[in-house]
Amino acid sequence: MVIVGGGFGGLWATRALAGRAVRITLIDRRNHHLFQPLLYQVATAGLSAPDIAAPLRHILRNQRNVEVRLGEVVGLDKQARAVTLADGDAIAYDYLLIASGATHAYFGHDEWSADAPGLKTLDDALAIRRRLLLAFERAEACDDPAERAAWLSFAVVGGGPTGVELAGTLAEIARHTLKREFRNIDPSHAKVRLLEAGPRVLSSFPESLSEKAKQQLERLGVEVVAGTPVGAIDERGYTLGDIFVPARTVLWAAGVAASPLGALLDAPRDRAGRVAVSPDLSVPGHPEIFVAGDLASVQQDGKPVPGVAPAAKQMGAHVATAIAARLAGNPAPAFRYRDYGNLATIGRMAAVVDVHGFRLSGLIAWWFWLAAHVFFLIGFRNRIIVLINWAWAYWSYQRHARIIFGPLDR
Amino acid sequence: MVIVGGGFGGLWATRALAGRAVRITLIDRRNHHLFQPLLYQVATAGLSAPDIAAPLRHILRNQRNVEVRLGEVVGLDKQARAVTLADGDAIAYDYLLIASGATHAYFGHDEWSADAPGLKTLDDALAIRRRLLLAFERAEACDDPAERAAWLSFAVVGGGPTGVELAGTLAEIARHTLKREFRNIDPSHAKVRLLEAGPRVLSSFPESLSEKAKQQLERLGVEVVAGTPVGAIDERGYTLGDIFVPARTVLWAAGVAASPLGALLDAPRDRAGRVAVSPDLSVPGHPEIFVAGDLASVQQDGKPVPGVAPAAKQMGAHVATAIAARLAGNPAPAFRYRDYGNLATIGRMAAVVDVHGFRLSGLIAWWFWLAAHVFFLIGFRNRIIVLINWAWAYWSYQRHARIIFGPLDR
Repeated sequence: MVIVGGGFGGLWATRALAGRAVRITLIDRRNHHLFQPLLYQVATAGLSAPDIAAPLRHILRNQRNVEVRLGEVVGLDKQARAVTLADGDAIAYDYLLIASGATHAYFGHDEWSADAPGLKTLDDALAIRRRLLLAFERAEACDDPAERAAWLSFAVVGGGPTGVELAGTLAEIARHTLKREFRNIDPSHAKVRLLEAGPRVLSSFPESLSEKAKQQLERLGVEVVAGTPVGAIDERGYTLGDIFVPARTVLWAAGVAASPLGALLDAPRDRAGRVAVSPDLSVPGHPEIFVAGDLASVQQDGKPVPGVAPAAKQMGAHVATAIAARLAGNPAPAFRYRDYGNLATIGRMAAVVDVHGFRLSGLIAWWFWLAAHVFFLIGFRNRIIVLINWAWAYWSYQRHARIIFGPLDR
Repeated sequence: MVIVGGGFGGLWATRALAGRAVRITLIDRRNHHLFQPLLYQVATAGLSAPDIAAPLRHILRNQRNVEVRLGEVVGLDKQARAVTLADGDAIAYDYLLIASGATHAYFGHDEWSADAPGLKTLDDALAIRRRLLLAFERAEACDDPAERAAWLSFAVVGGGPTGVELAGTLAEIARHTLKREFRNIDPSHAKVRLLEAGPRVLSSFPESLSEKAKQQLERLGVEVVAGTPVGAIDERGYTLGDIFVPARTVLWAAGVAASPLGALLDAPRDRAGRVAVSPDLSVPGHPEIFVAGDLASVQQDGKPVPGVAPAAKQMGAHVATAIAARLAGNPAPAFRYRDYGNLATIGRMAAVVDVHGFRLSGLIAWWFWLAAHVFFLIGFRNRIIVLINWAWAYWSYQRHARIIFGPLDR
């Protein structure tokens, strides 16, 4: 079979098929599995890229029924049952799993992408890190007060978990990490704004926790602006209502769209481009094709299954079960999402946790979040290194990965 | 005063001037000090970039007489006593230290640079890492035996310390790190060649250690080819004598040229572009301008002072002493290089050491090398993390930074 995508969905399906009489080709555009929940830490220089990524080949080296192929899928022939790669190779399948995830969406404003980069890949994270660090450098070298203020004005668009993490950490960097390092500016005067079009941040959480999150953000120095959508973004700033706000650094955490590979399937898709799958996660009319993770649109008890890592892992494992059932001549069971709760981190020792109505916030929620995330990090080495990096960062307020690559222009 | 370059020369001068009545502007094109002796470890995926680099601002945050400026020096007005930056700003100096180091040189064959990248900066190291990792991916996906062999053929040009380190580590990756990870190729069949135009590798060491180094390289699986210069390099391979050798990956470790900033001084320079300085390291006719590190050409006892990190640090510290003497109305003393010995690592548990005729090779030399290098790493945190990474790498043969960034084409 062919599995497209080595994220949580694809990798968990691959592993669950270990020892089965299936020959798997796992195709990914990247050579690594990425622990996406910690990607914001790379973007904010707390972790280095290899801390949260591991080569797919390495993870799967002992699983003899898997061949890993670095490549980009550009075509699908459902009649011939083959996918085509960008280098022209065609790879045949009997079963196919597409788990290529999601990308960011600008809701019809793709022209904003250059001035408000989003965060989905390691390349995105390094580009954001570069932008954040250069903004303080530009402010330090700048003589004009208005221009300097614009370099010290940051905005994060979108009050979901990623936006909250980015804004909280950014405020921490400005207030603590960079302390004493500059001579012409005071980084703690930087303005960090979190812009949410809806009425509250973390809208997937109960209202009480949204309110806690807002309070914790404000304590960290973030100004939360909810209820007004951003009207425009360019390299000098953004518009909110009628007001233009100068800001040289705007980050995008507002929209998610399914991977464009969903369009190859010719199946019904929802507004975000996700494929409406059958209860067993196969594509209607194509029992040999499955979709898992952020690309799959699954309804359960009248609510959509959320686009989070645990859901992707569960879907991946389910596809393995479904294929095993089919191979044994049995019908594939229906997928059922088990919700273990909802966590979001906000910044230094601040988080919110909602586990079936059991609600935490603040320091204890942050410890809960930390334990869960470090525990789930792929690979033994990474966990230790990440823990040491974190311990060091929290003890010293330092962020070790503050390295700017590449030429000096943005 | 103005110090150009935050490498070993510039940073050691800056630190030695702490507490003195001097206001220092330290200018660098990068925001970080780089521990260059371990750069080959980033190029070969053993360490991540932030492991061997620390932000200059952070290192110098508590030294109140220093202002760090991120910028590229493009001009020098010796009459007006000011340097010009690429962004147009001019910065005046009373004393000036230029310590902008060296870059790689292709001896009139700049057209080779695209196909045989050199290793001087973190960007270089990440580009080389990408090339090495992609070569194995290409070989795995390739059906044509000749083409596959070319992807598995590697050459390092130049048998100095960097070339020896790169070739030794590359052989280790092919033989051990990638074991069991591929299905269509056997990475241990990769051919790693070290090409040295002169009669022996590590020519700055005594002949007996060169021979030891060659033996250790061969034991690691490197083919050492000495005595024949490379005739041509292109993307498909290289020419040695009359023979074209297919090799999709060629790395350049053969030539060093002084930084182009030396040319701004209008002073006598040697063949490699280094500035011939006065005994106190000032520029002849310009007692207010100093040069230190790889950009300075210094003769001592009839021999050139080598372009190594300890020499750069000593020159940097000497410039601080010279300026302090001048400020006190005294003449600046002459610089004297203290040679603490010569070390080179070859690969897994293999190195050579020459300390004033006291010679070591093999495992014991490697421990000596490791201790010296980790001890001198800037920043407490880095040392611990680097040690843990190394311990892990040596125990498991793993290299944690095997992450390919960017698009899939080379």
